[in-house]
Amino acid sequence: MERQARAVVVLSGGLDSATCLAIAIQRGFRVFALTFDYGQRHRREVDSARELARHYGVEEHRIAPLDFLRQIGGSALTDGRLDVPTTGVAPDTIPVTYVPGRNLIFLSIASAYAEVVGAEAIYIGVNALDYSGYPDCRPEFIASFTQTALLATKSGVEGAPFAVLAPLQHLGKREIVQLGSELGVPYELTTSCYQGGDLACGVCDSCRLRLEGFAAAGLADPLPYVLAQSTDR
Amino acid sequence: MERQARAVVVLSGGLDSATCLAIAIQRGFRVFALTFDYGQRHRREVDSARELARHYGVEEHRIAPLDFLRQIGGSALTDGRLDVPTTGVAPDTIPVTYVPGRNLIFLSIASAYAEVVGAEAIYIGVNALDYSGYPDCRPEFIASFTQTALLATKSGVEGAPFAVLAPLQHLGKREIVQLGSELGVPYELTTSCYQGGDLACGVCDSCRLRLEGFAAAGLADPLPYVLAQSTDR
Repeated sequence: MERQARAVVVLSGGLDSATCLAIAIQRGFRVFALTFDYGQRHRREVDSARELARHYGVEEHRIAPLDFLRQIGGSALTDGRLDVPTTGVAPDTIPVTYVPGRNLIFLSIASAYAEVVGAEAIYIGVNALDYSGYPDCRPEFIASFTQTALLATKSGVEGAPFAVLAPLQHLGKREIVQLGSELGVPYELTTSCYQGGDLACGVCDSCRLRLEGFAAAGLADPLPYVLAQSTDR
Repeated sequence: MERQARAVVVLSGGLDSATCLAIAIQRGFRVFALTFDYGQRHRREVDSARELARHYGVEEHRIAPLDFLRQIGGSALTDGRLDVPTTGVAPDTIPVTYVPGRNLIFLSIASAYAEVVGAEAIYIGVNALDYSGYPDCRPEFIASFTQTALLATKSGVEGAPFAVLAPLQHLGKREIVQLGSELGVPYELTTSCYQGGDLACGVCDSCRLRLEGFAAAGLADPLPYVLAQSTDR
């Protein structure tokens, strides 16, 4: 019997990474999910990642603590003294929610994990919306990282390289929500809000992009929102 | 007054990184030292790093826990079930002490740190001896990493890039020991032994290379060794 291909999926617990996980599963990969606990405000993400991993019955789910990112700060997502913006991001600027080196670090650790479990692929949910603002979500970064990782690892040197796949790379939120819905992604298990409260705030950049995506796709977001609740009353 | 240039120095506490730190200090950099605690057998390294940082009066010394590397194993340095070899390494093979993705992860985290403190340079002590065996010590890896890191970070995008410097890149242990001695590196504070005991074992690959380096340089290694002690009696 042919060995089932293996993939490491970087699983934040948000909408994009959940969709990415569904894609890897649908493509027949045996999944090793990897979640980072880096002191982000929205740590509910980690619980969401756990539930998504359970839902999809992944082979293994590792949660890597990464306290250093919180220690050094430099981002509104990891530094409690900075406010999470709710007014949208100016075009061609890097938002204050940018976390220094985040995807570089995530993919580096994912590469080590891929090497140890013998994975042929690493999936990451970066997408078109991210890369206007976050340099580490751009296609040129993903391509360059892949080259570097293969030079760095035994897998690369010994001719068993892994690919870094970003299947959402050219999709906006509407397309991601549509694709995920077709794949049956349980979006009620995901977390997007940067504020990390019990209910999604509905006004941070992440909530707004998510809500716009569901609205454009003509679908209802199954998550409870603070604003929706106020309106209901 | 001109702003003093800043450098992040990856400081393991071994002979090479201590020499690298001395070089950065000698070149006039304000140093931000970064040590990784990744569950390595030779954790005495971390104490050595602390003492070296104190000796050189660095601006800041951060110790980043990186438990994930121990969790996933895959190396004789992080997996207690694998023995550290003492018989030398066959040419052109990757030793069992290879740690998957290590320098890729170290440099990624160093990049985040460099970005937050506004460093112009990252120093890492990889050298000619390492790169016969460890893919992530080769010059082509360092060059590729630099490109990737600049694509990943705000520093790179906004035109304030940092350089990744490996001043020992083309030096063997003899040249490193000679250079370090000229710079006054307190080698008695360093730790090289993979076994991590109170006395250096003198027979693991790391001890042997170190001892050969001091011998070739015609200098005495100030560290106490198990073997030297036995011989003395």
